[in-house]
Amino acid sequence: MPIYNAPLADMKFILNDVFQAEQFWQNNENLAHLDAATAEAILEEMAKFTQNVTLPLNRTGDEEGAQYNNGSVTTPAGFKEAFKQYAEGGWIGLGADEEWGGQGMPKMLTVLSDEMIFATNPSFMLYPLLSVGAGMALSSYASQEQKETYLPKIYSGEWSGTMCLTEPHAGTDLGIIKTKAERNEDGSYNITGTKIFITGGDHDLAENIIHLVLAKTPDAPAGSRGISLFIVPKFLVNADGSLGERNPVGPGSIEHKMGIKASATCVMNFDGAKGYLVGKENEGLAAMFVMMNYERLSMGIQGLGASEFAYQNAAQYATDRLQGRSASGVQSPNKPADSILVHGDVRRMLLNVRANNEASRAFAVYVGQQLDITKFSTDADAVKKANDRVALLTPIAKAYLTDTAFQATLDAQMCFGGHGYIREWGMEQCLRDLRIAQIYEGTNGVQSQDLIGRKTIKCQGAYIAEYISEIRDFANQLDADLNFIKDATLDAATEVESVTQYILNAASENAEFPNAAAVDYLHAVGLLSFAYMFARITQAAQAKQGEFYQNKLALGLYFVQRILPELEMRITRIKAGSDVIMKFSEDYFTHQA
Amino acid sequence: MPIYNAPLADMKFILNDVFQAEQFWQNNENLAHLDAATAEAILEEMAKFTQNVTLPLNRTGDEEGAQYNNGSVTTPAGFKEAFKQYAEGGWIGLGADEEWGGQGMPKMLTVLSDEMIFATNPSFMLYPLLSVGAGMALSSYASQEQKETYLPKIYSGEWSGTMCLTEPHAGTDLGIIKTKAERNEDGSYNITGTKIFITGGDHDLAENIIHLVLAKTPDAPAGSRGISLFIVPKFLVNADGSLGERNPVGPGSIEHKMGIKASATCVMNFDGAKGYLVGKENEGLAAMFVMMNYERLSMGIQGLGASEFAYQNAAQYATDRLQGRSASGVQSPNKPADSILVHGDVRRMLLNVRANNEASRAFAVYVGQQLDITKFSTDADAVKKANDRVALLTPIAKAYLTDTAFQATLDAQMCFGGHGYIREWGMEQCLRDLRIAQIYEGTNGVQSQDLIGRKTIKCQGAYIAEYISEIRDFANQLDADLNFIKDATLDAATEVESVTQYILNAASENAEFPNAAAVDYLHAVGLLSFAYMFARITQAAQAKQGEFYQNKLALGLYFVQRILPELEMRITRIKAGSDVIMKFSEDYFTHQA
Repeated sequence: MPIYNAPLADMKFILNDVFQAEQFWQNNENLAHLDAATAEAILEEMAKFTQNVTLPLNRTGDEEGAQYNNGSVTTPAGFKEAFKQYAEGGWIGLGADEEWGGQGMPKMLTVLSDEMIFATNPSFMLYPLLSVGAGMALSSYASQEQKETYLPKIYSGEWSGTMCLTEPHAGTDLGIIKTKAERNEDGSYNITGTKIFITGGDHDLAENIIHLVLAKTPDAPAGSRGISLFIVPKFLVNADGSLGERNPVGPGSIEHKMGIKASATCVMNFDGAKGYLVGKENEGLAAMFVMMNYERLSMGIQGLGASEFAYQNAAQYATDRLQGRSASGVQSPNKPADSILVHGDVRRMLLNVRANNEASRAFAVYVGQQLDITKFSTDADAVKKANDRVALLTPIAKAYLTDTAFQATLDAQMCFGGHGYIREWGMEQCLRDLRIAQIYEGTNGVQSQDLIGRKTIKCQGAYIAEYISEIRDFANQLDADLNFIKDATLDAATEVESVTQYILNAASENAEFPNAAAVDYLHAVGLLSFAYMFARITQAAQAKQGEFYQNKLALGLYFVQRILPELEMRITRIKAGSDVIMKFSEDYFTHQA
Repeated sequence: MPIYNAPLADMKFILNDVFQAEQFWQNNENLAHLDAATAEAILEEMAKFTQNVTLPLNRTGDEEGAQYNNGSVTTPAGFKEAFKQYAEGGWIGLGADEEWGGQGMPKMLTVLSDEMIFATNPSFMLYPLLSVGAGMALSSYASQEQKETYLPKIYSGEWSGTMCLTEPHAGTDLGIIKTKAERNEDGSYNITGTKIFITGGDHDLAENIIHLVLAKTPDAPAGSRGISLFIVPKFLVNADGSLGERNPVGPGSIEHKMGIKASATCVMNFDGAKGYLVGKENEGLAAMFVMMNYERLSMGIQGLGASEFAYQNAAQYATDRLQGRSASGVQSPNKPADSILVHGDVRRMLLNVRANNEASRAFAVYVGQQLDITKFSTDADAVKKANDRVALLTPIAKAYLTDTAFQATLDAQMCFGGHGYIREWGMEQCLRDLRIAQIYEGTNGVQSQDLIGRKTIKCQGAYIAEYISEIRDFANQLDADLNFIKDATLDAATEVESVTQYILNAASENAEFPNAAAVDYLHAVGLLSFAYMFARITQAAQAKQGEFYQNKLALGLYFVQRILPELEMRITRIKAGSDVIMKFSEDYFTHQA
């Protein structure tokens, strides 16, 4: 019953008008094979696939769920065929290197195709997503032989991949993992331990599963400096590439979750399973983090997809639902009631969602472009600058996009009244499925610590200063007609600059300050980033004629007047400091008296 | 696995120290039968019941759900026995008139006992809650004979009650309902139509179900002025009170919902069922609204209960979970990691929840006290004033308490990291179950319209002016030691006063203004109300010695510094006006281009 129409018009606007993608691609020798027409054709194909294949499986997948029986996992009806079709369409390797069977497409394009799958079926999307993540880690750190063995089969969808990090006692703090890797004489390792929350740890979509596993060798240093990365295939791979015997690794159970029920979240038991070291011993965490920037941006895209799906369904429901009369007088005298779209409060909710979506989409493409520069540019300065920008904005892309998207799915659900609470309308599934995106790949709290700590205090604010400088340069060249967004963006930039300095000063005197300020600071930088995106959107729209573009300007004004005022609150909270939080004894929290 | 320890210490503090309940009761001849010791004994009994009976059924109830088969509904295992025990304990009629078998307890006490059931098993609570609601409407509007026939059996739990309002096309806008009531010669009516979202429309907990049904007689005026209220029993009642033949009314199906799965939400078909008019024809909506103030406060209590449950579990998890190290250096050198309570961001989430809970609890008791004045006081002026206060604060009690509680359950879930997303921990159920409280009994958007329209603009701000006057009087007499809350409360009062005048002016010129401002205004008044509650809490705590009371002061400071800053944002949004919302065409919302 839920609908989805891929937002191709907005995607094309953002690629072509806001970011002049073709010009960017043509100016880069490694991307010059791509033009706007090809990019649009890819998006149109994905639109069809998601509308025809993944959308119809979304609710049935939720109702049926992934099932665990006798040591193996089956996916819901239709998933296997959909995955096959997805793989055969070349979608798994869309952004992967052509050398290994990928299509070499830039991230600023794949974020948009990813959005459509996340919008229509987030559970489905997680299977290929983990393959891509594993592929990325292997591309960067594995030996030539390992790459040849695993990458082509992963990108073809014959095999899939997982990332095995978390253990029952160790999530955020990977330094204390217990999984052991004991060296064999042949150079392989025996891996023993239990991993939890392993997405796609087992399933029936591919003939083999390549687990990337963090473990500690017996003589490894304590903490995060003693973690190594291993390839542990479900089935061992013979020299000729065919499948050999079953490795003693498998799912002990699957989790029963709030959402993404069609995605198998496995407890994985490694009972002396054969593993192959990737890169060097004790350097596993670095290898894992190479794909983190990509994965974390993907979680932001999951948010955007869900929020777009929620928006479309809520807008349609609000149009169809007749209830009450307009405050300005009857609008539809021939009907028993007006559409609920006449009510400002319903519009407020829808506009919150839509403003969030359009800014999020632009931001995802912007961060995608920065990632593309790091990967494809031959200009070392540009790469360095883009790397810094990606480092700064990855926690925003992950946490701010999912925080705002979750609120958006709540707003959209509320437009349905009681019907939003009923499963068949799909809105409650949408937010159940999305909620995990605020939690996994590092909770949004952990993202905020990353932003304020490693990305801001550690470099003494250099990354954010560079970003603010770019934002100022952009805003300053806007026409007077765009003063509403120009002034708002410049003011926000000054506010964030000032509070960053406040944080740097406070942190130097009080080690507890940053942790207490982190989430509010992330939201402050997120609000500034969305103001910047609306500055870019409205500038592009201003150059054009027609209602589509006029509405972009109107939505930008809505953002400035109704959403951006949150910035002031965030800054006030940051300045409240940590004393008011830290002075309670630990006992206080669990004791009433 | 989830825990619950009834927050009796805080409840007693609020009753005894903040509101001097015993003195209030003893000064009222209709409540003088109650003293503090009796009240505390009642709360202690309910604490046992909820910890031993309803809590263990919460998760199993969610997993099993209410089941519909062959035209009737069965509740999950254990519910029948629990309901019997609840009824035999006299809990259904705890707040009902003694004349009809109730215990005559004041609302300021029953809000606290209700909180415990909502905390441990919201699905269960809805069954007796609907009985109480039906009983309340009958107490006010039914004939003596009707009261004698139905009330004692409802309060004893032999029978239960429902409220049948919503139809597929008509929820908020009851004026357009289609259910027909045709007069029979014997004075009864034949009721025909379909009602949806009927909580407890069918179940196996009681031998009869008394439906209170809104319907229209053939010659009724159009709109909400033509609605009548009818008693439609599942089984007709013989003259001697025994059960007669089955009335042609029954469930067509039950909804599959996001949460409160153990509560049967029924589609009810009335096929010429025999109904008995309550009160007069065309005055049904007024009869229905008589219990709305009570029911809507109950939804706020549902929020508080869920938030308290969430808090306790999250605080315990955070205490037990070892991950990472304190920013100030290792706190537990003998453990592999520190408790996550060392992290300011985790504390921030827990303190948000706890501050919300303590303010909500005080506010519920405050509104309960106002309701008690309307019911039990013999002073006409006091009753008038309390009626105005209840009218003003009911939308706050319903919407602000559930909005803040839902955010609290999200914060609590986040403290669990990935485990918060897993069903067995109970946190995801808590928020799924709570979400409906923001939607039913009038969505929180509709509550906001009620506040800004009927309760503020209609009386030209008289109700809020009286409330602010009370708040100012209270704040002004606080000691200098409490300047932090005194100043914050007085400032908030001035801000709300000023923005109310702004709204009155704007509304007189622009009919669309109030609807667009409503939700932000409700949150502004909510924040002021919580500041007022913390003023009362901290004053009571200041008079005492010991850590329990010191922590109340510290939590009040946390509220002022970290939560109250939201007020400024709400006011800025209100002043942004409605033009930025209303200028989009209706087509815009469903069209991308």
